[in-house]
Amino acid sequence: MSGGSGLAIRPLLEEGKDQELSELLKSLHPADIADALEPLGMDDIVKVVSLLDNQTGADVLVELNSQARDVVAQGLPVERLTGMVQEMESDDAADLVGDLSSDTASEVLSNIGSEDSEEVRRLLMYDGETAGGLMQLELVSVLETDTVEEAVGRIRRMAEEVGDIGHVFVVDSLGALRGEVSLKDILLAGPSDTMAKLITKPPGLVLQADEDQEIVAQKFQKYDVKVAPVVDHQNRLLGRVTVDDIIDVVHEEADKDFYRLAGSSEEELYVKSPLRTAGLRVPWLLFNLGGGIITSLILRAFQASLEKTMVLVAFVPMVMSISGAVGSQSATITVRGLATGRLAGGNILRNLGKEQKITSIIAISFGVVIALISGSLNRALHIGLAVGLSMAAAILVSAFLGAVTPVFFKTVDIDPAMASGPVVTSINDVVSLLIYTAVGTALA
Amino acid sequence: MSGGSGLAIRPLLEEGKDQELSELLKSLHPADIADALEPLGMDDIVKVVSLLDNQTGADVLVELNSQARDVVAQGLPVERLTGMVQEMESDDAADLVGDLSSDTASEVLSNIGSEDSEEVRRLLMYDGETAGGLMQLELVSVLETDTVEEAVGRIRRMAEEVGDIGHVFVVDSLGALRGEVSLKDILLAGPSDTMAKLITKPPGLVLQADEDQEIVAQKFQKYDVKVAPVVDHQNRLLGRVTVDDIIDVVHEEADKDFYRLAGSSEEELYVKSPLRTAGLRVPWLLFNLGGGIITSLILRAFQASLEKTMVLVAFVPMVMSISGAVGSQSATITVRGLATGRLAGGNILRNLGKEQKITSIIAISFGVVIALISGSLNRALHIGLAVGLSMAAAILVSAFLGAVTPVFFKTVDIDPAMASGPVVTSINDVVSLLIYTAVGTALA
Repeated sequence: MSGGSGLAIRPLLEEGKDQELSELLKSLHPADIADALEPLGMDDIVKVVSLLDNQTGADVLVELNSQARDVVAQGLPVERLTGMVQEMESDDAADLVGDLSSDTASEVLSNIGSEDSEEVRRLLMYDGETAGGLMQLELVSVLETDTVEEAVGRIRRMAEEVGDIGHVFVVDSLGALRGEVSLKDILLAGPSDTMAKLITKPPGLVLQADEDQEIVAQKFQKYDVKVAPVVDHQNRLLGRVTVDDIIDVVHEEADKDFYRLAGSSEEELYVKSPLRTAGLRVPWLLFNLGGGIITSLILRAFQASLEKTMVLVAFVPMVMSISGAVGSQSATITVRGLATGRLAGGNILRNLGKEQKITSIIAISFGVVIALISGSLNRALHIGLAVGLSMAAAILVSAFLGAVTPVFFKTVDIDPAMASGPVVTSINDVVSLLIYTAVGTALA
Repeated sequence: MSGGSGLAIRPLLEEGKDQELSELLKSLHPADIADALEPLGMDDIVKVVSLLDNQTGADVLVELNSQARDVVAQGLPVERLTGMVQEMESDDAADLVGDLSSDTASEVLSNIGSEDSEEVRRLLMYDGETAGGLMQLELVSVLETDTVEEAVGRIRRMAEEVGDIGHVFVVDSLGALRGEVSLKDILLAGPSDTMAKLITKPPGLVLQADEDQEIVAQKFQKYDVKVAPVVDHQNRLLGRVTVDDIIDVVHEEADKDFYRLAGSSEEELYVKSPLRTAGLRVPWLLFNLGGGIITSLILRAFQASLEKTMVLVAFVPMVMSISGAVGSQSATITVRGLATGRLAGGNILRNLGKEQKITSIIAISFGVVIALISGSLNRALHIGLAVGLSMAAAILVSAFLGAVTPVFFKTVDIDPAMASGPVVTSINDVVSLLIYTAVGTALA
């Protein structure tokens, strides 16, 4: 493995062995340095970063989580920070500057040179969660009429600035994208071959600057590309998105959905204080509290009839648990389908139909089993019927709500992932208890 | 967008316009053809694939879901299937052959030529969910002593076979990996420069053949590489893993975790029948059923004391809903942390401590609120105290179980994602109800 572990950083810091620490840092991969820094205190993080050269410092800053990055941005002299920003690729520089306080940001921007600061300002205009927000401006573009020799000249001039070149993009004299040529094809062609001869047209994937990052990630996955050009509505080449950013997007989007499903927010990843973390979870639990108050009122309202049939009450936790679980299965699976693009267009309706069949099978089989259990436990057929039927009805309704709510949320432009956490659970609690007590007391 | 949509395939099929269909298929991206085929019937899928040339057919087969692929493998004449497998990269060929019935597999293997079949057999020996199972054998390797001119000669000879070349791998005379050289550096170097001069050493990331794909994906993300060499325990170069496969892994792993969190299996993605899908969900719901039976027995056991304090019963759904939700927050967030590698080593214990602080804050604040609500609803201080205290106790225990169970599952080598679905919910149902009724009836 490249670099090895950064575990040795902390002891060297504590013993104040700056010389050995510098040596160690040179042998480590920036991603490993970032990993080692994140758990350290403010002063230690700033101290280690200040020991790095600007290029390594830039690479470490890019890998750090936003909390540790804030610490560095506040603690590092602004000249060092500027030096590091200058070494970053434009997309990383824009991400960092976008996170700085406005004072520090403008100081950094005024010091990194007018061309770089112009690039950063241009990138900051795009929404961070679109193709424009993901793209970098560093790329090699050539003209259709360029020969291989001329193209190699352009690559040579850009080699320092553009880290990773797998393709060059071919544009016409107005800057409109015509296609792309792989470095392999350039390497194997004759020196006087023109780009027009080598062009792949259309390129694997072309992105619009305003496309949402979730859609962009789905397209990268579908078309198996490693880099894609970004164009404006006039098809003019603006930048490129590389696949390493896409992996981060896929991770981020999955993180977001997991946290929202749980009834919290992905902000938890950047918050250290337990009190503030609790503050992210509590609002969602208020739905459970509200649902709980309503269920307690329902049970009070049915108190008279329930006291006669205490056996019904004994099955309340079971009905809530099973119908909650069935509803949450439908909801989670629908949310994931919507997030991955598997559920779109006509598939959405087809999925609702399928979910209804699946959950009907589950509702009927559990209804029968529970009727048998409760009937024989109480040696009374009508009790069994009452519990089994009301259980089946509660499961069916919960499942329907579970499958429909994410679709409804998506339609009204709320993140569907919010629909399968506490919100749906609480609605389900109320509805399934209402159905259960109403059907149960009527039959028992 | 490349290719455009495959929506026009179905009408042309229905009208039997084979000529126009062939023309349309030539203009489409294989991934779009695959998307358009998946909802079609068996005969239509086979018909369309048989109209494709072998290279496009191979690309479509790679993109198809496994169900549609099975249909093609069974319906297509074995000679056509063989022709398509021959056009595939070794990793895709191995995936497909691995899915075939053993008769068809051996027929295909005996027809694709001894070199290709040897490659497929070699790849099939690796576990599908390891670096070895992800790698392809197509790559360009050069010697340290090779000049740029010799390296370009090797690239030229391999250009047909190796689709996408961004790097060449440098090995010594025994086949041991020494490093890698980017095509950019080769393009910009002089013809007599040696690979030893251009080598990046160590390379960004080197994988062991038996590394788990989840770890491999984490490393790709951390080190931002697009391709990584795979070696055996003697550091001999075996193959390479490319980033497009990694995006699929990240997606698959997230899918798996979502389905297991919901209490189902990622198999749902490949199963069409509602009955079989229900069969994937029901086993998990049996935990809820078991938990439900136990909770009904608990309520029966406490029946005498509960009838005196019917007000306690009214809050049973609330205690189960809130403590279930808090436990599920802790569990989901812990599961995701374990899956992404954010929680590892000392972080695991630190996370448990943090979760306990967070959930204590939640338990105390909800306990107080619920004490006030139930106390004033019943105009009785001791009822408020009983409900509030027992609620806080139930939340605390649920949260503890939620955070600990995934870690315990991981330790005993069960997928932690299984720990935050119905299993933990059911345990929580029982434990929280037990605590609530015990504490509640003692105090009320």
